[in-house]
Amino acid sequence: MSSDPLVIFTPSGKRGHFPAGTPILTAARQLGVDLDSVCGGRGICSKCQITPSFGAFPKHGVTVAEDALSAWNSVEQRYKDKRGLIDGRRLGCQATVQGDVVIDVPPESQVHRQVVRKAASARQIIMDPATHLYFVEVQEPDMHEPTGDLERLEAALRAQWGIDAITADLGILKRLQPTLRKGNWQLTVALHRSHRGGAHRVLEIWPGLTEDRIYGLAIDLGSTTIAAHLCDLRNGEVKASSGVMNPQIRFGEDLMSRVSYSMMNPGGDAEMTTAVRTAINGLTEAIATEAGIHPFQILETVFVCNPVMHHLLLGIDPVELGQAPFALATSNALALSARELDLTAMNETAQVYVLPCIAGHVGADAAAVALSEEPGKSEDMVLVVDVGTNAEILLGNKSRVLACSSPTGPAFEGAQISSGQRAAPGAIERIEIDPVSKEPRFRIIGSDLWSDEPGFDQAVATTGITGICGSGIIEAVAEMRMAGLLDASGLIGSPDLTGTARSIPEGRTFAYVIHDASAEGGPRITVTQGDIRAIQLAKSALYAGARLLMDEMGVDKVDRVVLAGAFGAHISSKHAMVLGMIPDVPLDRVTSAGNAAGTGARIALCNSAARAEIERTVREIVKVETAIEPKFQEHFVNANAIPHATESFPELAQIVTLPAVSFHAGGDKGENRRRRRRS
Amino acid sequence: MSSDPLVIFTPSGKRGHFPAGTPILTAARQLGVDLDSVCGGRGICSKCQITPSFGAFPKHGVTVAEDALSAWNSVEQRYKDKRGLIDGRRLGCQATVQGDVVIDVPPESQVHRQVVRKAASARQIIMDPATHLYFVEVQEPDMHEPTGDLERLEAALRAQWGIDAITADLGILKRLQPTLRKGNWQLTVALHRSHRGGAHRVLEIWPGLTEDRIYGLAIDLGSTTIAAHLCDLRNGEVKASSGVMNPQIRFGEDLMSRVSYSMMNPGGDAEMTTAVRTAINGLTEAIATEAGIHPFQILETVFVCNPVMHHLLLGIDPVELGQAPFALATSNALALSARELDLTAMNETAQVYVLPCIAGHVGADAAAVALSEEPGKSEDMVLVVDVGTNAEILLGNKSRVLACSSPTGPAFEGAQISSGQRAAPGAIERIEIDPVSKEPRFRIIGSDLWSDEPGFDQAVATTGITGICGSGIIEAVAEMRMAGLLDASGLIGSPDLTGTARSIPEGRTFAYVIHDASAEGGPRITVTQGDIRAIQLAKSALYAGARLLMDEMGVDKVDRVVLAGAFGAHISSKHAMVLGMIPDVPLDRVTSAGNAAGTGARIALCNSAARAEIERTVREIVKVETAIEPKFQEHFVNANAIPHATESFPELAQIVTLPAVSFHAGGDKGENRRRRRRS
Repeated sequence: MSSDPLVIFTPSGKRGHFPAGTPILTAARQLGVDLDSVCGGRGICSKCQITPSFGAFPKHGVTVAEDALSAWNSVEQRYKDKRGLIDGRRLGCQATVQGDVVIDVPPESQVHRQVVRKAASARQIIMDPATHLYFVEVQEPDMHEPTGDLERLEAALRAQWGIDAITADLGILKRLQPTLRKGNWQLTVALHRSHRGGAHRVLEIWPGLTEDRIYGLAIDLGSTTIAAHLCDLRNGEVKASSGVMNPQIRFGEDLMSRVSYSMMNPGGDAEMTTAVRTAINGLTEAIATEAGIHPFQILETVFVCNPVMHHLLLGIDPVELGQAPFALATSNALALSARELDLTAMNETAQVYVLPCIAGHVGADAAAVALSEEPGKSEDMVLVVDVGTNAEILLGNKSRVLACSSPTGPAFEGAQISSGQRAAPGAIERIEIDPVSKEPRFRIIGSDLWSDEPGFDQAVATTGITGICGSGIIEAVAEMRMAGLLDASGLIGSPDLTGTARSIPEGRTFAYVIHDASAEGGPRITVTQGDIRAIQLAKSALYAGARLLMDEMGVDKVDRVVLAGAFGAHISSKHAMVLGMIPDVPLDRVTSAGNAAGTGARIALCNSAARAEIERTVREIVKVETAIEPKFQEHFVNANAIPHATESFPELAQIVTLPAVSFHAGGDKGENRRRRRRS
Repeated sequence: MSSDPLVIFTPSGKRGHFPAGTPILTAARQLGVDLDSVCGGRGICSKCQITPSFGAFPKHGVTVAEDALSAWNSVEQRYKDKRGLIDGRRLGCQATVQGDVVIDVPPESQVHRQVVRKAASARQIIMDPATHLYFVEVQEPDMHEPTGDLERLEAALRAQWGIDAITADLGILKRLQPTLRKGNWQLTVALHRSHRGGAHRVLEIWPGLTEDRIYGLAIDLGSTTIAAHLCDLRNGEVKASSGVMNPQIRFGEDLMSRVSYSMMNPGGDAEMTTAVRTAINGLTEAIATEAGIHPFQILETVFVCNPVMHHLLLGIDPVELGQAPFALATSNALALSARELDLTAMNETAQVYVLPCIAGHVGADAAAVALSEEPGKSEDMVLVVDVGTNAEILLGNKSRVLACSSPTGPAFEGAQISSGQRAAPGAIERIEIDPVSKEPRFRIIGSDLWSDEPGFDQAVATTGITGICGSGIIEAVAEMRMAGLLDASGLIGSPDLTGTARSIPEGRTFAYVIHDASAEGGPRITVTQGDIRAIQLAKSALYAGARLLMDEMGVDKVDRVVLAGAFGAHISSKHAMVLGMIPDVPLDRVTSAGNAAGTGARIALCNSAARAEIERTVREIVKVETAIEPKFQEHFVNANAIPHATESFPELAQIVTLPAVSFHAGGDKGENRRRRRRS
C-alpha cells in the first residue's frame, strides 16, 4: 500500500494515493473525476473550485487534518479579491495534497453535470456538449522555426489539452493573428468536435481568458410555430425560450398545401425556405436580446422538425414528400454550418445538427420524441403521441418500436376552428359544462380564475376573451359530449332537444355558445358543427394511427400513454379519452411529456453522445406508412364516433358515464333527413 | 497449376488464370491491372477498351487462338454503331476469357496513365486525381424501407464501387431527387476524396451516364501575373492555358508595397482580396470559353503562390508578413471549397487545394517548385532558382534541402525597366551585340526572325516593336557587358569611350539604344543606367540568396543549376552567368525547368498522392531567412559587380572573355567624379 496521501473525491467516491504536492486538479484528472477547468490549471478561470472537508470520516476510513492541503496562496487570494470565492472553497489547481483529504466537487465545478428537466418527467440531461472552451498559451513565432500561427495553436492545444487536430474556417484564420497578439499569445478557443470524430473545429476565439459564455439553440421547427430554447453550453441552463409563428403559413396551413404550393409555383420552395430561415434569424435575435447575450455567442443549433419542414429548411423541394413513395432526399442526421443555411443572426461558424428522419412521413421531430421519451428502453408497452399539426406516433417497448405519422391537421392547435386561436393570453384553455344547467365555466390563458369566480372580469380586462385554443376546443367537445349537448356521432343537439338556449342555429346545424360579448361589440365564442367535424377528423386520424401500430405490434391494448407536443401538457387525460383521441387505459397511466420534441432537441444540443444514440435508434425503429395502409382508412372511419365505435372504454366508464343521447331524426341517416326536412 | 485459361496483360505484364467466361474487366481488376471503367462494366461507358493479340507469343510462352475471347457481341456492336470503335478493339466488360490470351491495355484505357510534360524536362505526371467520375444504378425508394435518396446513392456506391461513405452539400442534395428521376435511377457522380482520407464528397451529379468531362485548374498566382492551366482530370491533358495581370499591381508593384498598403489603409487587404478573386473569376471564365467547356465542369483548383499572395487570396491581412518574425497565419496546406474563396465562376462545389508554405518568405510557390524539381531526390547538389518578382531558391540533395526567398523585385519581369514590358508579342526577347561594331540584332516575341534577317520588318508589322521583356533585358545587359559597352561595376560608357553613337547621354549618365523608331513616331528602346542598376539589384539579391544557402550547406560550388519561373525557359545560361545571376557551373549543367511552380501545381492537381508528398517534404525543408541574416547583406553588396566580385568564373571564362573596360574616371569613385566634372 502506498504511503502517499489518500485523496477521496465526493460525490463520485473516486480515490487514489498521490505524492505530496500534487495539485487537486491533477489528482482529479488522473482519477477521471469530473472537475472542470478552462485555463488548464493556471489559476485564472476558477472553474476547478473544490471544497475540502476536515475531521474524521469513519465511512471513508480517514481523518483529515487541517493542513491536509497546501496553504491558501496568493493566486487564490487574488482571484477571491477580484471575482469572489465562497468561504471554504479552494482552487483545485492551486491547492496541493499534503495529507489524506476528502474533496467535494460542487455541482458547478462538474463538467458533465446532470440537468434536471423543468417538466414533470424525471428525464435528466447529462452535459456533454460537442463544443467546449479551452484556454491555451501559444508559442510566439520564431523566424528560425517558421510555422503558422494556426499550427502553433494546434501544437499548444495538443500539448496543453491533448487535442489531436484542429481545423478553422477562413473567417477564424483572418482573426487569428490579431487576436493572438492582443491576448499576448494567450487565447480562449471554442472547439467543436463531431460525435462522428474527426478534427476539432475552431468556432470562435477570444484574446486571453474570456468571460463570455457560449450558447446553443434547440429549435423545434413546427408547421405552425417555431419554438427555440437558448441553452448555456456549460451547464445546460435554459437562458431564454421564445417562439414565433411559422411564416410559411401564408403558403398553406398544413404541410400538404405547402407541398402543393411548391408544385404549383416554380421557385415556391425557395420562397418558403427563405421565409422560414428569415423567421429563424428573427427568433435568434429576439432570444439573444431576451437573454442579454450577443448572438455571436450562439455556437450550436439543433433542429427537430417534420420531413416537409426539414426539406424546406434545407432548401430542398419537398415535392417528393407529397406523393408515394414519399422519398426523402436524405434521411440521415445532418451536420452543417449556420452559413450553409443562411442563419446569419448567430455566429457564422455555428454548427447545426439536424436530427435524422425516420421516414418520409415520420421526421426528425419523431426522432427527437424517441430520444426524449425513450420508448425503446421501456419495460411496458408505451404509446407516445406527439400532437401537432401532424401527429407523430411511437409504440413499443425495449424489444421493438414502431413509428408512424398521422395527418391530424391543425385543428388540435386551434386552427380551422371557427373561434380558434393559438395558445396566447385571452384564449380559453379550460372549460367545464354543467350537465344539468348546460352552463359553461372556463379559464383563459393569463389568469388562474374560472369565469364564475369573483374578480374574473377584472383579471381578464387587459387581455379580453379572444377565442379558444387547442386544448380548449378538445375540452369543449368532450364536455359537450359529457353534458349531453353532443351525441356519439358528433351531432350538436337543437335547443329543444338539449334544453338550453346556448344551443343556437348556425346554418342548417347548431352551435354551442360558450361566451357572448357581441352586445358589447366583443366576440361571440361558439363551438359549431363544423368545429366538431374538424376535431372528429383530427382525432380519428390520431386514433387510427395508434390503432394501426397496435395491429402491427399485435397488441389490443397499451400499458401507458405519453402525450407529447407543445400543448400536450394542457390536455386533460380524461377529456382526451372521452374524445377518443387515445386508446382506453387507466387514467393514471396517461402522462404528459410536455414538448418532448423540444426536449429531444435540447438533449441533442447538450449531449453529443445522444446524437450517436438517436442515429442508431432511428435505424432500429420500424416505420409504418399510414397513407397506403387500407387498415388505416378502416380505423379512421370507425373512429369517427365520440369516443369511438371500435373499442370499449372500461377504464373511462369507471370515471364518467356518457349520456346515451342521439340527435339523429332516425338512425344513421338522421342528419341528412333533418336537413331535407328543414330545407 | 490451374487448368483455367491464362490471361496476360500488356504493358503491365500482369498475368493470372481465370475461369472461362470471366470478363476481361473482372480479370484486370482482380490482378490490379490499370483498366478504366466509369459505368462499372455495364457496356455503356466504353472506357475499358482493350486490344487482344492472337498468335504465338514465345516470350510469354502462350499461343493465343482466334477464339480465345468470347465472340463480338451486340453490346459492342451497338456501341460501335453509335460512337465508333477502332478495329481490333473490344470492350473489356463484354469480352470474356475462353482460352489463353494476351490483352493490351491502350494508354487511353489506363486510369493512372503517365502524362509527359511538354517542357524539356523528363518529369512525368502519374494520373491519380482526387476527383473521379462514377456511374451508378440507385435503388428506387420503397415506402416500406424508407431511406433517403442520398442514403440509397451511398449504398449503391458501396455495392457497385466499394466506396465507403459519401457526403454532399445542400446544393447537390437539392438537385439529387430530380436528377435521379430524370436519369431513371442511373446517375453519374463526381466524387472527391481528400488525400487525408475521410468520406468521398459529391461534387457534381448528372442523370444517366454523362458525356461531360471534368476539369481542374492549376493556378500559379504570382505577384505580377496570374497563370492558369485547365487540365482534363481524366488524362491530365492541358486543354487551355491563360494568364492575366494581377490587378493588385495598382496597390503596389512589389509585395512589400502591398503589405504597406494594407497597413496604411483600413480594409486595404479586403480590397486586394476582392481584386485578386475577381481576376481569378475572369480568368476562369476566359479559360473555359477558350477550351469550349462549361465552367461548372471545373471541379478542382490548385493554387501555388508566395506567402503574401497566399494570405491575400485567403482574405487574411498580410501585415505580419511585412515585419519580423514574418509569422504566417497558417503554413499547412489548405483544402477549401471554391465557395469559401468566392470563386463563383467555377462549379460552386469545386474543391480548392492550396500548397503548403515553407516559411513567411518562402511560399507555396517554392513548395510547388520542390514538388516539380524534387531537389530532395537529387544525387548531386542542385540549386533551383525560381525567378519571379521574388526569387525562391532551393539548394540540396537527397540528404538535405535548404530554402530561402530573395527580394529581387520585378526587374527580371521587365517591370521598373524604362523600356520594359511583360512578355507579349512585340517585346524584344533575344538580343546580340556585335563586340566590334557594337550594333545590336534582336528577336521579338511573335517572330522567329532576327532583326537583321530579310522579311523581319514585314513579320513584325502587325505587332510592332514595343519594348523589352524580362529575358530580353537580361540578355541586353549581359551582351552590353560582353561588347564592352558596360564595365564590371555596371557603368555604361560614353560614346567616346565605347566608340558607338548608340551610347547616348541620358541625364548625367548614358543609355544604349537598341532600336529607335522615334523618327516614324514609334518608340525608342534603350537600356538606361537606371535599368542596369535595377538589374544589378535584382541579380545581387538572387545571387546573395543562393550564396547564403551555400554557406548554410557548407559548400563552395553546386553541381548543377535549374532555372525555373515563368520566363526561366527563356534565359540563356550563358547570359545568366555573365550577369552573375547564378554561381559558376559548367554551362551544360544549367537547365531550364520552365514554369516549375506551375508544373508543381499541375502535379498536385493530377496526383492526389503528390499532395501528401509535398506536405511531408515541406516539413523536412530547412528554411533560411534572408531578411535577418547579416551575411545576406554582405553577399548582396559583393554581388553588385558584373558578373560579381566574390567568385571566380573559370567555367564561364572557357566560353567568353569579358573585356577589361572601366568607365570610371578614376577607380571606384569614377562615376561621382565624372558627375562632378560634368556639372
